[in-house]
Amino acid sequence: MSRNIALTIEYDGTAFRGWQLQPGQRTVEGEIEKALEAITGHKADLFGASRTDAGVHARGQVAHFKTHSKIPTAKVQGYLNQILPDDIVVLHVEEKPEDFHARHDAKGKWYRYAVFPRQFRPAMERDIVLHSKQKLRMAPMEAAAKLLIGKHDFISFGVNSRKDEEEDTVKTMHAVCVSKDGEKVLFDIVGSSFLYRMVRSMVGTLIEIGKGKRHPECITAILEKKDRSAAGVTVPPQGLTLMRVFYDDPSGFQPSPK
Amino acid sequence: MSRNIALTIEYDGTAFRGWQLQPGQRTVEGEIEKALEAITGHKADLFGASRTDAGVHARGQVAHFKTHSKIPTAKVQGYLNQILPDDIVVLHVEEKPEDFHARHDAKGKWYRYAVFPRQFRPAMERDIVLHSKQKLRMAPMEAAAKLLIGKHDFISFGVNSRKDEEEDTVKTMHAVCVSKDGEKVLFDIVGSSFLYRMVRSMVGTLIEIGKGKRHPECITAILEKKDRSAAGVTVPPQGLTLMRVFYDDPSGFQPSPK
Repeated sequence: MSRNIALTIEYDGTAFRGWQLQPGQRTVEGEIEKALEAITGHKADLFGASRTDAGVHARGQVAHFKTHSKIPTAKVQGYLNQILPDDIVVLHVEEKPEDFHARHDAKGKWYRYAVFPRQFRPAMERDIVLHSKQKLRMAPMEAAAKLLIGKHDFISFGVNSRKDEEEDTVKTMHAVCVSKDGEKVLFDIVGSSFLYRMVRSMVGTLIEIGKGKRHPECITAILEKKDRSAAGVTVPPQGLTLMRVFYDDPSGFQPSPK
Repeated sequence: MSRNIALTIEYDGTAFRGWQLQPGQRTVEGEIEKALEAITGHKADLFGASRTDAGVHARGQVAHFKTHSKIPTAKVQGYLNQILPDDIVVLHVEEKPEDFHARHDAKGKWYRYAVFPRQFRPAMERDIVLHSKQKLRMAPMEAAAKLLIGKHDFISFGVNSRKDEEEDTVKTMHAVCVSKDGEKVLFDIVGSSFLYRMVRSMVGTLIEIGKGKRHPECITAILEKKDRSAAGVTVPPQGLTLMRVFYDDPSGFQPSPK
């Protein structure tokens, strides 16, 4: 009988060419599939909730795979963590109904983007934050963040890279929070789903607002234009972390900075 | 005329064999001396306030060097940061009196040690925290930390590795704080000076107390015994960061977790 097993995974994206399997490249999916083959004895197809880009991190990626192996679910986590490299760790393992799909069944995701505003580049944490030479003003970013919340067509913030998939560009943002963590500025975004590079282009726009290059009200105009060139730059991947994938309604969830 | 220049330096210690110059090894001192030679045109001898071990980080190491070069002090920082590798950055440059010595003149240092208690090893931040499988109880650690504050003979927590130097083993701890930062536990220690590996052996003892292996009162007995074998284990270097070096009286300073 085939079993469907879901993994909750943390990884440091620095040394990976992203999530998705690519021949000859070190990817998170590739490393985990190798480990799954070692413990189940067969090739396993892993489906991740989010196909994170190279350099993007995860504290709560979810992925599922099917197996005929008789390995007890309770043993999977320990075995995997012994085999997996230092920059991947499995935090939770759960047997799911046969039709569970980590990506299709996701009802929402929480992403965090971290920025370190300082005159000089950071030496510590340089692979997990974006450096900004300029200071960021909190109040305008907070005002702009509020305008992103709710149900909108986010095509202005997205890239439709999956030409084979008809993708609805109307998404719901349940929370868009800007907060301080010491010297760092954190952007926490909880949404129903996201277009390709959408979080990074939303954060890029918010940063331009924090630097005073744009007014907070520009958000409304950008959403109305339905044109990718209206939004700000797409910030680089290393500041981004997939914090959590929701399989229940995430609409009441408030991301806490700590 | 010879000038005496002090640098405040941040580094990620992960990829270094520590601070001190060693032939054929990548060290922080070695990298900075190479960069100084490139900008001053002569070999420079750099003296760091703390000779941090391999894997130990710094957010505020201080070091001085002497130079006959006419390079303007205001230009030194920009030039160095262009040459230095990603994992070292100079945060401040200041011309000092001729007799200033980064190590001998230091009146105190603030070290931080970070522990991540969780059932499974961390993938993110794995090079800047110590992983503990066991939970740490805060109240006993806080009680024990208080017993370390003040003027004591710390020989039980130190290693006298400098046999050529007569070192006074009586030190003053101005602050020993245990706090939470999200899931992490931070140990912040401000002292007049420290014996070799003293911070890591103090933290190792506090962790044993947090795990319930020792009582908080053991601190008094350890200090009285004046015997290295009385204290707890020396925890590994990667959780340790030199936060700041003081050249004024540090006795009133309170380390803030953020």
